[in-house]
Amino acid sequence: MRPEIYLFGDSITEASFCDGGWGASLAHHFSRTVDVVLRGYSGYNTRWALEVIEKVFPEVSRGGGAPLAVTVFFGANDACLPNRCSAFQHVPIHEYKQNLHSIVSFLKKRWPTTLVLLITPPPIDEEGRLRNPYVENPMGLPERTNEAAGAYAKACVDVAGECGGPVVDIWTKMQHISDWPRVCLSDGLHLTQSGNKIVFEEVVARLREEGISLETLLVDLPHIAEIDPNDPLKSFS
Amino acid sequence: MRPEIYLFGDSITEASFCDGGWGASLAHHFSRTVDVVLRGYSGYNTRWALEVIEKVFPEVSRGGGAPLAVTVFFGANDACLPNRCSAFQHVPIHEYKQNLHSIVSFLKKRWPTTLVLLITPPPIDEEGRLRNPYVENPMGLPERTNEAAGAYAKACVDVAGECGGPVVDIWTKMQHISDWPRVCLSDGLHLTQSGNKIVFEEVVARLREEGISLETLLVDLPHIAEIDPNDPLKSFS
Repeated sequence: MRPEIYLFGDSITEASFCDGGWGASLAHHFSRTVDVVLRGYSGYNTRWALEVIEKVFPEVSRGGGAPLAVTVFFGANDACLPNRCSAFQHVPIHEYKQNLHSIVSFLKKRWPTTLVLLITPPPIDEEGRLRNPYVENPMGLPERTNEAAGAYAKACVDVAGECGGPVVDIWTKMQHISDWPRVCLSDGLHLTQSGNKIVFEEVVARLREEGISLETLLVDLPHIAEIDPNDPLKSFS
Repeated sequence: MRPEIYLFGDSITEASFCDGGWGASLAHHFSRTVDVVLRGYSGYNTRWALEVIEKVFPEVSRGGGAPLAVTVFFGANDACLPNRCSAFQHVPIHEYKQNLHSIVSFLKKRWPTTLVLLITPPPIDEEGRLRNPYVENPMGLPERTNEAAGAYAKACVDVAGECGGPVVDIWTKMQHISDWPRVCLSDGLHLTQSGNKIVFEEVVARLREEGISLETLLVDLPHIAEIDPNDPLKSFS
């Protein structure tokens, strides 16, 4: 059975198989070595994630064993401001931290060998959010701010440190890109192809640091380059 | 457990999670309803596929039950000419037909309820093949021709008819596109984003005809639009 990498998160995970999406790129990268399994739930925060985690990760996993890795990519909805139009998705930052800890603990208890890779929420372009409202916004104020997203990103990095696990700090990384609000984000929150590429590259790099890479994984069935043109069936015996 | 759709085929399947690839697009389309599982093996023909099919589809599937559907997309390599530079991949057309029958029989015996969707090889642009050789080609003649691919495509359509199962005839469909050698193919054989889009749309349409569509599938966990903003947790109880 091929090993599996689960992608658990909100809409930025659910949409990760769009054209050039980071999930699709991972599946392409690992096309002969790993099954990339999509478990993205648009709009979800860590509080709701904890409500459903037992269903998302049943005791007997699809592969029968422990997944190789799980990416946990929440926070963009938790960081909605509590007094703006998407307040119902807001989770206070101390609870967000606790919830992330609980998610990591759940996964590590279920599968001690599974790598849990946290990903911080991305930065927010407030103008982009105002131009692309998801719900009615009579106040005319952005429901998310980059400052709040940054605080949640920092909390996520802190949780990874406290758990001794890896993290991709996409909030910080993206803001190193010139003109990041337009280059990386399509509506002030979700990712463009360029933004997706950054997440993909960061995830691949972090997995590699943890020993998960094309060099260490078994290729499923003989590669065409290994098949002897003079006796192809020999490769399959 | 989410139902699964397996994609079984050669390089056109293995590469189907590239940017805009038909496999990635399927996974995106079914992002909350189906797990799309990639089982593409570059260079493989139906003879080699039969050698490995027991390993590709173990008795206990990943999902524990029968997959919802399996796409079977072989023929591009079988149709390599027997006297040209990729002859080692060639499979005679009568054996190709038999092999496709055996693949369908294997899957239907293992999982009687699983939909087996055959896909014909794509058309070939011979000039494109000469410009993009995969192996040394001292003869300077294309290793695949559109005429041969067409014969294998017809054989594939015939097998579907004989089995009473659905088929996507991508060889015929693509040649309805104006300037198809450049619009649909990147190297005379493999698919551009436009070519991938056609395969995606045809597969989705055929699945829908067989009763597999977003309208009939269960959405995994409450959709954000169904969550009551005044009492979100109610949706999870």
